[in-house]
Amino acid sequence: MQHSHIPKIYSPGFGLVLDLYHLTMASGFWERGLYERKAVFNLFYRKTPYDTPYTVAGGLQLAIDIIENFKFSSEDIQYLGSIKGSDDKPLFDLSFLNYLQRMDFECNIDAIPEGTVVMPHEPLIRVEGPLIQAQILEAALINVVNFSTLIATKAARMVQAARDQQVIEFGLRRAQGIDGGITATRAAYIGGCHGTSNVIAGRLYDIPVLGTHAHSWVMIFDDEITSFREYAEAMPNNSIFLVDTYDTIQGVKNAIEIGKEMRREGHEMVGIRLDSGDLTEFSIKARKLLDEAGFEDAMIVASDQIDEYQIEEMNERGAKIDSWGIGTRLVTGHDKPALGGVYKLAAVTNEAGEWEYRLKLSEETIKISNPGIQQVRRLSDGQGVPIADMIYDLHLPYSQRVYDFNGEQFQDYEEAEGEDLLVPVFRNGKRVYDSPGVGEIRKFSLKQQALFSKVDWDNYKTGLEKHLHHRKMELVEKYKRETAAK
Amino acid sequence: MQHSHIPKIYSPGFGLVLDLYHLTMASGFWERGLYERKAVFNLFYRKTPYDTPYTVAGGLQLAIDIIENFKFSSEDIQYLGSIKGSDDKPLFDLSFLNYLQRMDFECNIDAIPEGTVVMPHEPLIRVEGPLIQAQILEAALINVVNFSTLIATKAARMVQAARDQQVIEFGLRRAQGIDGGITATRAAYIGGCHGTSNVIAGRLYDIPVLGTHAHSWVMIFDDEITSFREYAEAMPNNSIFLVDTYDTIQGVKNAIEIGKEMRREGHEMVGIRLDSGDLTEFSIKARKLLDEAGFEDAMIVASDQIDEYQIEEMNERGAKIDSWGIGTRLVTGHDKPALGGVYKLAAVTNEAGEWEYRLKLSEETIKISNPGIQQVRRLSDGQGVPIADMIYDLHLPYSQRVYDFNGEQFQDYEEAEGEDLLVPVFRNGKRVYDSPGVGEIRKFSLKQQALFSKVDWDNYKTGLEKHLHHRKMELVEKYKRETAAK
Repeated sequence: MQHSHIPKIYSPGFGLVLDLYHLTMASGFWERGLYERKAVFNLFYRKTPYDTPYTVAGGLQLAIDIIENFKFSSEDIQYLGSIKGSDDKPLFDLSFLNYLQRMDFECNIDAIPEGTVVMPHEPLIRVEGPLIQAQILEAALINVVNFSTLIATKAARMVQAARDQQVIEFGLRRAQGIDGGITATRAAYIGGCHGTSNVIAGRLYDIPVLGTHAHSWVMIFDDEITSFREYAEAMPNNSIFLVDTYDTIQGVKNAIEIGKEMRREGHEMVGIRLDSGDLTEFSIKARKLLDEAGFEDAMIVASDQIDEYQIEEMNERGAKIDSWGIGTRLVTGHDKPALGGVYKLAAVTNEAGEWEYRLKLSEETIKISNPGIQQVRRLSDGQGVPIADMIYDLHLPYSQRVYDFNGEQFQDYEEAEGEDLLVPVFRNGKRVYDSPGVGEIRKFSLKQQALFSKVDWDNYKTGLEKHLHHRKMELVEKYKRETAAK
Repeated sequence: MQHSHIPKIYSPGFGLVLDLYHLTMASGFWERGLYERKAVFNLFYRKTPYDTPYTVAGGLQLAIDIIENFKFSSEDIQYLGSIKGSDDKPLFDLSFLNYLQRMDFECNIDAIPEGTVVMPHEPLIRVEGPLIQAQILEAALINVVNFSTLIATKAARMVQAARDQQVIEFGLRRAQGIDGGITATRAAYIGGCHGTSNVIAGRLYDIPVLGTHAHSWVMIFDDEITSFREYAEAMPNNSIFLVDTYDTIQGVKNAIEIGKEMRREGHEMVGIRLDSGDLTEFSIKARKLLDEAGFEDAMIVASDQIDEYQIEEMNERGAKIDSWGIGTRLVTGHDKPALGGVYKLAAVTNEAGEWEYRLKLSEETIKISNPGIQQVRRLSDGQGVPIADMIYDLHLPYSQRVYDFNGEQFQDYEEAEGEDLLVPVFRNGKRVYDSPGVGEIRKFSLKQQALFSKVDWDNYKTGLEKHLHHRKMELVEKYKRETAAK
């Protein structure tokens, strides 16, 4: 298994990676003697961020690292003791802070492995355990799962648009923080990218690293052709020449000139990179010049504010690009820079220790949260192609009748094969799951994407199993009745 | 002075926080015997990300921490030795890798302090030093300055829209990574926010932390009023009740009921929070109900996908909101999730050790980079109100004639007072600057924003000093001539 880079950030622990209200609620549970009650929380999102009907799950290994290091140091506790309330007295009781520092992690956690294709409303992570413990993980878990899932999904879209061309992630400098860059590189690779320019991520996650030179290399020398010659002599085995510092077509001609010189020395030019102007037009002209000069194998790399829409559009216009270098618009999520995942209470034990199901009402039916202790079953046809995702409850009777989330329609899948998506990750606070390496996750994700390219989306249903659906409707009625009665 | 959280991330050093091409170029400089040449690089951006005509500079302290820890460990060097080129042989020579590990940092670095109002094209950081050293800092410096400047600027827009209402940053869960959340909190505070929900950032940077309870608190109990009562009993000095779990107006009534009970015990309800629905309408109704019940001082907090446009619009519609809790749309930059900063070579020494100026051409005049060893002078009128920013060269004669970046127009400011924006940060590799604490930076930023609210933007000029302008034009001609001659 492979560890992530995150644990090194905040030694000794992640205890304070939360919002203040997690601790004020925890303190409230402590004060009111409710801290031993058990709760179930689900981490899910409500809408796909882009116009792909699914997302590619990411971030579980980072979540595991956080959970295993979710501890409060003495300095953390001292800091919490210094926070004041509206009456200028300490917000937290010493007895609560002592409890926090001593607390043993006891949760059971199930999750959908990274690289899996997932749909809105499905629990990506389900946390069951003592109220305080399950609650205080909220912000950290949402943070890492949201961001990794977002970027893995964006990368998948770009890789799908590029078909058999390469997609290389170039975004470190434009990412949101250093860790933002590293996490984005990891997620982009999971989504299907072929490599990265980001060296620290390459080392940490064993991701292929790529890159040759920048404009500054060219500008150091008196002219461009000298700069190419010097580069070829210094690094003949990494010879992709950036041709747009002064004049792109002249740059291509200079690269060809140096390519010929290299051949005389027994080396082969790898290719050229275009970084500005009309990339489609330049790539067509450059391909022609390279081919005519006998450099049919020299590759053309393109970079410069590229995204999946441009890849599509440029390929349609006949661009001759072998490799796309993508930065800002990949590592930030660009048109949608957050997934919007949430973490909602779905059940809590009563004084007798029995589960009571919970949901949050909303004026919009689709925003009413789903109660229960949930598992996701993916139903497939005889050929193994997925046809529906059904959220069912582990404590309720089972069927293969799936209701839409708005509750108006259902469909039966009696004959369909099913596979559960959530797997055990923690049992009683101990990790029972080994995350695969990032390379393996990437392979799995590409297989999932290939499988889902066969799906009939018009007829794909995601919804609630019949008994869970009915239980939810009863709860909605009950809450509405109680609110109206006031 | 206050340190940032970043150095703890990647012990022992940041050496690998770069793109591979920084190292292939460095290796090239090494191989070609150019590594002792000196270079000047400028970090700047070309366009303001939002429709504010300036940005608020951020990230310098994080940049300093990275520079002071930019070292290569033995594991880093071993990893670099394992990277292969196109011929499957090692990309890097051992002698180069040894040099890298032994390298002593010798750069001179000047920068504009955090919190300063800055404009496009101005060097936020200027790095002068041995070619290799100045080059390999590129990605890390752009990363931290870009992101912090983006978020400080977004926060400033929100704080300005909110006028005398509070803006609290609530974004940890939606940020791009854990460090993305912490860095965003720091930058949002610099931009003028009043506090955060993010506890780890609160501890690390001494930023006020705020928060009370979530929907889950309400859902744990059998009904909402019981949940409020329990919360008030547990934490009377932190009593802001979230009222929208089931029905917002009923929620406000329940909060008032508990507020009355609290008064009987000698406590005072702090306020309520609205988190869904029409916040304007609910806030007006809630204010009326609270006032009628004698809770004129109870504050109304609003959260739910808020940004500066909504603050403006809701205030125009008469919303009665005292405090805005802002998450996703602040900490990700939302409509523009990256600043787009670049790091460009502006000068390099020749074999004789003399400076030669450099620029990168572009079809768009505005994208041609500025050469030279630059300083920014801010010119002000007799009342101290800024009227122009002028980039001048430290080695060229000085005037107060400012040319537009497109070079078509100029204006004279002979009488204007001037102040240089860049200050010395490193000299010969040693830090000579102590960053103020984040609270002090915030105060400075708010003063800067107040000063720039007086600026006559229609007549504000940012451009190049006359001699620098002429030198640039000469260089552009020279490069164009040389390219055409091929």
